[in-house]
Amino acid sequence: MNYKMLFRLSGRVLLLEAAFMLLPLIMSVIYHEPHSAVAFAQSILITLAVGFLFSSLLSKGAKPGFYAREGLVVTGICWIVMSAFGAIPFVLNGDIPSYIDAYFEMSSGFTTTGASIIPNVETMTHGTLFWRSFSNWIGGMGVLVFLLAITKGAGKENGFTLHILRAESPGPSVGKIVPKMKQTATILYLMYIVITVLNIFFLFIGGMPLFDSVCHAFSTAGTGGFGVKADSFASYSPYIQVVTTIFMLLFGVNFSIYYIIILKKIKDVFHDEEIRLYFFVVLASGLLIGYNIRPMFSTVSETLRASFFQVASMITTTGFATADYDAWPVFSKTLILLLMMIGACAGSTGGGMKCARVLILVKSLVINIRKNLHPRTVQVLKINDRVVSDDVITNTHAYFAAYVIIVAALTLLLSLDGFSIETNLSSALCTFNNIGPGLGSVGPTCNFAEYSDLSKILLSFAMITGRLEIFPILSLLSRRTWKKT
Amino acid sequence: MNYKMLFRLSGRVLLLEAAFMLLPLIMSVIYHEPHSAVAFAQSILITLAVGFLFSSLLSKGAKPGFYAREGLVVTGICWIVMSAFGAIPFVLNGDIPSYIDAYFEMSSGFTTTGASIIPNVETMTHGTLFWRSFSNWIGGMGVLVFLLAITKGAGKENGFTLHILRAESPGPSVGKIVPKMKQTATILYLMYIVITVLNIFFLFIGGMPLFDSVCHAFSTAGTGGFGVKADSFASYSPYIQVVTTIFMLLFGVNFSIYYIIILKKIKDVFHDEEIRLYFFVVLASGLLIGYNIRPMFSTVSETLRASFFQVASMITTTGFATADYDAWPVFSKTLILLLMMIGACAGSTGGGMKCARVLILVKSLVINIRKNLHPRTVQVLKINDRVVSDDVITNTHAYFAAYVIIVAALTLLLSLDGFSIETNLSSALCTFNNIGPGLGSVGPTCNFAEYSDLSKILLSFAMITGRLEIFPILSLLSRRTWKKT
Repeated sequence: MNYKMLFRLSGRVLLLEAAFMLLPLIMSVIYHEPHSAVAFAQSILITLAVGFLFSSLLSKGAKPGFYAREGLVVTGICWIVMSAFGAIPFVLNGDIPSYIDAYFEMSSGFTTTGASIIPNVETMTHGTLFWRSFSNWIGGMGVLVFLLAITKGAGKENGFTLHILRAESPGPSVGKIVPKMKQTATILYLMYIVITVLNIFFLFIGGMPLFDSVCHAFSTAGTGGFGVKADSFASYSPYIQVVTTIFMLLFGVNFSIYYIIILKKIKDVFHDEEIRLYFFVVLASGLLIGYNIRPMFSTVSETLRASFFQVASMITTTGFATADYDAWPVFSKTLILLLMMIGACAGSTGGGMKCARVLILVKSLVINIRKNLHPRTVQVLKINDRVVSDDVITNTHAYFAAYVIIVAALTLLLSLDGFSIETNLSSALCTFNNIGPGLGSVGPTCNFAEYSDLSKILLSFAMITGRLEIFPILSLLSRRTWKKT
Repeated sequence: MNYKMLFRLSGRVLLLEAAFMLLPLIMSVIYHEPHSAVAFAQSILITLAVGFLFSSLLSKGAKPGFYAREGLVVTGICWIVMSAFGAIPFVLNGDIPSYIDAYFEMSSGFTTTGASIIPNVETMTHGTLFWRSFSNWIGGMGVLVFLLAITKGAGKENGFTLHILRAESPGPSVGKIVPKMKQTATILYLMYIVITVLNIFFLFIGGMPLFDSVCHAFSTAGTGGFGVKADSFASYSPYIQVVTTIFMLLFGVNFSIYYIIILKKIKDVFHDEEIRLYFFVVLASGLLIGYNIRPMFSTVSETLRASFFQVASMITTTGFATADYDAWPVFSKTLILLLMMIGACAGSTGGGMKCARVLILVKSLVINIRKNLHPRTVQVLKINDRVVSDDVITNTHAYFAAYVIIVAALTLLLSLDGFSIETNLSSALCTFNNIGPGLGSVGPTCNFAEYSDLSKILLSFAMITGRLEIFPILSLLSRRTWKKT
């Protein structure tokens, strides 16, 4: 392990985080919340100090030698550290008195989970609300990718940047949009900013206050789901609900698609198998759930608005709600659980298993059946007419096995708190897939506050493990990772 | 598809089934149940007639050309047909008036699931009770394997027999015990008979009536779990409960182990990684559950007897019960659900995913993490110091993907009946893993009668799909399977 580089990078991440905290500090000043402003100022100082210690003193003479292992480990450590410091202002301004609760809330924010331990968000300060939603936005695209986009000379350390981008980006494989990684990161962030601004605009002209529009657009962009209202989106106008449905779906799409659209190759978009699967699943489950819940609503448009909002929210793993879907029929609830598992497209800000992985799993299953029937024929797995390499297939299978094992183990450990199996399974799925609210005791109208501290720590790690797609965190558990080199 | 061979083999299976039905006919005579005796006699005639039609008239001039596809398809079809004819006596003797219910009960019997739609077994005739338990026994080792053991000249068609044995035997790979398949099948059945007789003996000397001893030993041997008492094993003596715990565990072991013991290579047994994992899981979960449920019992021995009985019953997928574990704490219930998924050893009569597959999955996951950390090193998966071939690993991963997809789809389809998610998930797991009673509304004290007819048909196919480990049934869905050749 290249410890000095580890310190240097986590130090830089902390400096960046301190800079990010200036925004909630400004919000606190604007909304006349002096107590919160002081809390953010103190947090900035602490974070700056530790960031400086890490990035200069403790990493003197660091050599940029970086391998696959370092890429995974650095990413894992940075996310753990980031949440640890991001939680400080909540404790200092008194909004979340327990540090473990604050850590849970912050990991939930950065990992774009959106699970909360706050009983009623409407009692929180504007600084806290803004910092929560902003953490969704930062976490969505990845803080290291941001660092990569703004750091001078990062392009030189191409090995390093590729490993980081791989570890932090969601999905089975990262395609470079353009040959240089730094440029790829910059293009991704620019598109991210443009679509977020569009989202703010459409919410604002629909009559939502500017502060709410900004917070909601941030949470939508990161598919995080931290809101500013106790009832999430239930009391907003139909227009705002529809706009949010559309933007949730847009942020669940592979971002390189937008680059392709800019390049005017729109045909390619319609032929992309992952995009097709994604929209097919959305359409099919939206209609099925709509049909299933029709007795609970008075008009067809109201029914479909509710079903498609929840479907978009679940498959993109955002976690907003316009209705208490925990009270919906069992069929709809089961379908919602399955949508949580499937997740959005690879290369989007969404969580879950990702449509691309589902495609690979199903296709490799079909190929395996064919092989069993005709042992002598050669079968190749293709997506978008390109052969998928054996490495990617093996990785996908390993991911899937790890996924099921982790969810099962988590459900078992949570069961010690005594809630129902449905609640625990849905908590495990909701945190690990970075969704947020679940079913049962952690349904849309309830939250995670009732779990024990131990469970909250477990769930925090589940969120980070899920956001980084398992391997960066699992690699921290390997003994050899910590050997000096 | 070699249709003529398909008819010949399913015809032979029916003739064999007619012969098996002679035993419950005799039981009906012994216990003076003339109505039931007539029902079995009629069923035998019907089965004989169709069996004769299939095996001679419809398969004239059949050529023994047999490929992998045929092996899978024949096995799948035979099991569906076998259950269809085995269900007839239940309808004719009036014990189960609905044919769909009878079909569910019989598939449950042959697949050694042990799920039941009978409200109270104590009101059934002796013929019915015996036929249910006997179907567990036949299904445990496999009816085609039996056919193979007794058919003259089967050894010549070695391609055929290998494909059948592969399709019908549980586990990731079939090792031939001796070079000739026919001999392997014979040795397996002899050991099966010997251990079953020992089980009858130990139950009988513990004071259980002979009829009950035979039925219970049959159900234990096949890890089926059809009993003759309404409360399963709750009212039997501690001695009988302990004996049954031990025999359930013995039947969950890979049968080739017993052959190795006969050859006096006992050291090999202790070094077998699957056996070690199996007994480790049993011991660990027995103790954990025992600790968890200790407030519900008065003595330590009573607690451990209850926990180990349920653990043995669940991991071997037998499904007997001495306690209403649905009322146990959530931790124990979750652990029980996980044991259901793990299942017994490959090459045993038990169901589930099998310990060998869990080993392969976990080891391949570890190897994949190592590969991600050191992309340039070569890693091999070994079990018992032998390299596991890539084919077996790929097959295991495909099995696992199919497993999760099928359980998820089944849970979704069952949800249309309106029961809770816990009930549906546990029904899906319990039928697909061939366990029997589950949790919630299908817990140890309840049964599957309340599901709709459509769900019962679905569950029947789930049981057969699970027993034959997915691929024989999935291959029936391929269009190319049904082409003439």
